[in-house]
Amino acid sequence: MAKILLHKENLFHNLNLILKQAGKIQKVAIVLKDNAYGHGIIEISSLLKEFGIKKAVVKNFKEALKIKDYFDYILVLSNKNFNNFHHNFHFALNCFELIKDLPNNINVHIKVDTGMHRNGILPEQLEDTFFKLVEKNINITGVFTHHKNADNILSKDFEQQNLLFSKIKEEVKKICKRFSIKLPAFHSCNSSALFRHKSIEDDFVRVGIATYGYLETNSKTLPNLKPIMSLWANKVSSRILKKGESVGYGGTYTSKKDISISTYDIGYGDGFLRLNENQHYTTPKGFKVLGRVSMDFLTLNSNEEEVCIFDNVKNLAKIHNTISYEIITTLSKDIRREITK
Amino acid sequence: MAKILLHKENLFHNLNLILKQAGKIQKVAIVLKDNAYGHGIIEISSLLKEFGIKKAVVKNFKEALKIKDYFDYILVLSNKNFNNFHHNFHFALNCFELIKDLPNNINVHIKVDTGMHRNGILPEQLEDTFFKLVEKNINITGVFTHHKNADNILSKDFEQQNLLFSKIKEEVKKICKRFSIKLPAFHSCNSSALFRHKSIEDDFVRVGIATYGYLETNSKTLPNLKPIMSLWANKVSSRILKKGESVGYGGTYTSKKDISISTYDIGYGDGFLRLNENQHYTTPKGFKVLGRVSMDFLTLNSNEEEVCIFDNVKNLAKIHNTISYEIITTLSKDIRREITK
Repeated sequence: MAKILLHKENLFHNLNLILKQAGKIQKVAIVLKDNAYGHGIIEISSLLKEFGIKKAVVKNFKEALKIKDYFDYILVLSNKNFNNFHHNFHFALNCFELIKDLPNNINVHIKVDTGMHRNGILPEQLEDTFFKLVEKNINITGVFTHHKNADNILSKDFEQQNLLFSKIKEEVKKICKRFSIKLPAFHSCNSSALFRHKSIEDDFVRVGIATYGYLETNSKTLPNLKPIMSLWANKVSSRILKKGESVGYGGTYTSKKDISISTYDIGYGDGFLRLNENQHYTTPKGFKVLGRVSMDFLTLNSNEEEVCIFDNVKNLAKIHNTISYEIITTLSKDIRREITK
Repeated sequence: MAKILLHKENLFHNLNLILKQAGKIQKVAIVLKDNAYGHGIIEISSLLKEFGIKKAVVKNFKEALKIKDYFDYILVLSNKNFNNFHHNFHFALNCFELIKDLPNNINVHIKVDTGMHRNGILPEQLEDTFFKLVEKNINITGVFTHHKNADNILSKDFEQQNLLFSKIKEEVKKICKRFSIKLPAFHSCNSSALFRHKSIEDDFVRVGIATYGYLETNSKTLPNLKPIMSLWANKVSSRILKKGESVGYGGTYTSKKDISISTYDIGYGDGFLRLNENQHYTTPKGFKVLGRVSMDFLTLNSNEEEVCIFDNVKNLAKIHNTISYEIITTLSKDIRREITK
């Protein structure tokens, strides 16, 4: 059976880099959405708890329920089924129109659209939003935004969004004074933004991809993050592929000499994105994927019982014309996760 | 919440085409591996049972256990944890060397490599394989092979593999007579092969992708299969994107005029493969994906509450330079499945 190894030392190494940048552990919220970016939400939560992380960010209520015992504070980013099930749950308000659907006494983080133009209320709706939420007896526990381009140091979007968010913070402070309500927590940094700031003024940062050892940015001064996931597959069957013989669907790989090949139990049905004959991938030990990856198998010029398919997905992301996030996040939940040192 | 609709009428339509081609229902085994190619293994199993299908094919023991109450006969294709848990389970033997690991009294289908050179014993190992299995008191209930190129009518692989498999069948008949054992079931057809044969001589066919409404072949006479899955997403948030404003990561879509846009709750974290700004996709109703698909969201020039993202994945497969199989199979199990007429 294929398996995913989670390298604890690498995770703790990344967390220490994040912690150093954020300033203190109370300022660190780790993003665990989409099965912790494919790593395994329970396994990663247990390790984060061991490290001392108190805050987590997830996509929906279902994910929040899974990890409720691991964290003191959980922010749910994209849910329309708001509820006050747990006092530690906080729900993002992504749209002014959704206020009418909120139950009383819920914890809400107001998302403000500072330039990404995807989710969030408009800056000019800020006061109205506070008014309507206070009227409904809703606890406004956070105000936040999201960067559209923090990974691109050549763009001015980052500075512009920061400037706008600073103004929003000032306005929120005034509004809170007027309504005599507690100041909410402010947050705006994703992984790239965290490592671009000299110091963090916000109350906390939301760190996803850097936790897992990647950062998609064109900055030349990158933190020394280490991927924490490696993917391993097991041999199903071996044979000699004779000179002139082909292997797999379409027979797209033909051998120029007699070689020893084996089939391994991983394929795109497991979320390992399909490689075809035009995409050439080599494993960390130098084995080549021969021909097409099929739904449940791939073939390598190897005879080993167990093979590391990747311990870093940067090359795969390049081959697939995508980002590291997609390669790791699509991996099936059914693959066994194992924590190692 | 995003959802997957499963169109029962389309499934039954496809099954009728398959049944007509196979000859009788006892000759039809439906492949349900990888969560029924992403459709939902339980939902599809319940519909297949209603239709009257008796045989199923899965990848591993875990999948077999899930559907054991729906079928009379389950073939497990890729397992190394062989066991005799259930008298209706049959395990593929993918390699001669694995015989030593087989427990007694297990049901085994011998896979023979007739040219794909991926899994299976070699043709010259056939007699030895029978000898060793009989010696271990193992029930040889099937002998089968897999086509490497049945979807390519320009290649001669299909005929060559058929010819070799015919010879293997003759040899098996002689061996069984000699050992005084019951003749195993023969099977070799996948979806493409099924629709290339005039009539089916084998004992049954293993139909995967055609069940779900697709066939990846260059034949000009295609059966009229209908996709049974459609993917739907829900609106999270709406706004006006003003002339000159951009949306999403990198701001890669910039509007030439004021337009109404909305964000919907589906992304590559749900297994809907990532589209970037160079890949242009339009939904069945004509809405365009604006900019990049992110982990949990995509943006459309729509204001509708619920939008059909696809009801046929052929275009998406083309855009992603892959096959329909991958687009449907990678969809997350966490997306709700609903059966509709």
